[in-house]
Amino acid sequence: MEAKEPIIITGKEDMRKWSRCVRAQGKTIGFVPTMGYLHEGHISLIREAQKHAQAIIVSIYVNPGQFSPNEDLSTYPSDFLGDIQKLRSIPGGVDAVFHPYNLYNHGDGCKRSQQQELVRGEGNEVSCVGENGGGGHQTWVRVERLEKGLCGKSRPIFFRGVATVVTKLFNIVEPDVAVFGKKDYQQWRIIQKMVQDLDFGIKVIGAEVMREDDGLAMSSRNVRLSPDERKQALSIILALSKAKVEAEVGGKDNCKELRSLVIQSVEKAGGRIDYAEIVDLESLEPAEVIKMPVVFCVAAWFGNVRLIDNIEINAS
Amino acid sequence: MEAKEPIIITGKEDMRKWSRCVRAQGKTIGFVPTMGYLHEGHISLIREAQKHAQAIIVSIYVNPGQFSPNEDLSTYPSDFLGDIQKLRSIPGGVDAVFHPYNLYNHGDGCKRSQQQELVRGEGNEVSCVGENGGGGHQTWVRVERLEKGLCGKSRPIFFRGVATVVTKLFNIVEPDVAVFGKKDYQQWRIIQKMVQDLDFGIKVIGAEVMREDDGLAMSSRNVRLSPDERKQALSIILALSKAKVEAEVGGKDNCKELRSLVIQSVEKAGGRIDYAEIVDLESLEPAEVIKMPVVFCVAAWFGNVRLIDNIEINAS
Repeated sequence: MEAKEPIIITGKEDMRKWSRCVRAQGKTIGFVPTMGYLHEGHISLIREAQKHAQAIIVSIYVNPGQFSPNEDLSTYPSDFLGDIQKLRSIPGGVDAVFHPYNLYNHGDGCKRSQQQELVRGEGNEVSCVGENGGGGHQTWVRVERLEKGLCGKSRPIFFRGVATVVTKLFNIVEPDVAVFGKKDYQQWRIIQKMVQDLDFGIKVIGAEVMREDDGLAMSSRNVRLSPDERKQALSIILALSKAKVEAEVGGKDNCKELRSLVIQSVEKAGGRIDYAEIVDLESLEPAEVIKMPVVFCVAAWFGNVRLIDNIEINAS
Repeated sequence: MEAKEPIIITGKEDMRKWSRCVRAQGKTIGFVPTMGYLHEGHISLIREAQKHAQAIIVSIYVNPGQFSPNEDLSTYPSDFLGDIQKLRSIPGGVDAVFHPYNLYNHGDGCKRSQQQELVRGEGNEVSCVGENGGGGHQTWVRVERLEKGLCGKSRPIFFRGVATVVTKLFNIVEPDVAVFGKKDYQQWRIIQKMVQDLDFGIKVIGAEVMREDDGLAMSSRNVRLSPDERKQALSIILALSKAKVEAEVGGKDNCKELRSLVIQSVEKAGGRIDYAEIVDLESLEPAEVIKMPVVFCVAAWFGNVRLIDNIEINAS
């Protein structure tokens, strides 16, 4: 398969028009939403999308709606030209890149200079500063039970922001298939459930976690790790792999013990655990004993970088 | 224009397939969501839709997600065959009627006999009883500021249910244009805002209130009024019209005084006021003085029937 030169679209209406035009030609549309700073993990999502659809759209948009004021929105890495370079070199290629400037601005009310400033008010509203006359964004999609646990505990508005921006992107791009990485396991399950509950005509596919040669899960945030932190961060997947063996081969089914094992390993390596939970694959409810397949999810800080990873574990 | 025999579709996937097929033929799709028991008000929405689109879909579905346990879901009037009869006689006609059995059931988990029972749990979840294994509906769309006032005060989950079911219907029907009645003024503004905030590719049109010869706003609930209550109910529009004249012609701009006038008139007639508010046309924030166009919204009980109505008022 040859590579392609993707068209770059910044306007919502242009994106929808392009997508409808492609559909009218009888092609199915595969969609991979990203926040940019693309790595092999993203590329694997695009390859997965290529298996299921004839035209591929990748979005690159750092969504302010999912960051709390104390989080790393301003330091989130970006390299748009590098991203396009990478997309160009993918065999089979990408047809269009949707790169909107601001998805929370309804046009008339906000001048260009004001678009860069986003405010989160009392209700964590995202709106542009200035003369919006009560027209600021106020509609949110929530997947109420799934958004509560795991990352939802330390990032209370995160999944509200994710579900909302994905709804917006789905409505603009109108894809047939969308691919999400299982590295963000809770996010994948939330989008799956949202698509089911809200009757989107879209097939959601979860793609396996992509890892560096030593096992570290690929993440745009990895570049912010110091060399020491980079070594420490490896403790997550080493501990999770060990727990998987102990459970599947060694027959250890007590979740409290398995969690202690992982927490101790990561902390010993120099990480600070945010959570280490063993939960049901679909409901994400915590398990006490491993009787059915589960997923072991971890979030931990190394310096000021928060990483997540997970591993699926079968009952022994 | 000739009348048509509408096709009746009950399955979500069949509905989407039909709609995409019609669009592939180059036709635009107009959509009128209803809860059935159709009257001239609904017919006027369909006529409005005909002006903007080439194929018309009407949905008939009493949405359990917008009724609280203490509300009139079980007594909400229905007459499906009568409705179809009415749709058949509309000049220009309706192309398809979407009449789903249960929009909150995801297929496999619920047997037919269980579908009829809906539970609203702690979080007011709507799900089918039985083996849903945590699969019950849990995704809700909220238009956070607009949903709070007016009807939102006495019906706290109402607009959450409306916004969510309309999102579902939009995703199933995939229309180009959707028509809502301005009789449900707050609902119309909420859907408009939701479509803007979530980037639906749908044009929302508000159609004027249809009234009986004596002025009573048409509503499916009117049939539940006794002859006495029917007379009392007329007090709403009489008082609103009087307030409009006092404001626009008489120059009375004090909202507190105008509200008192309406409250007293309706109560004197035998109604119980739920609210009588003068609010901004778009933000629906209460006004103290009429400086710009506003809308005067009223909800009142007559016996055990709750009616709403409204009138737009210009500054004098």
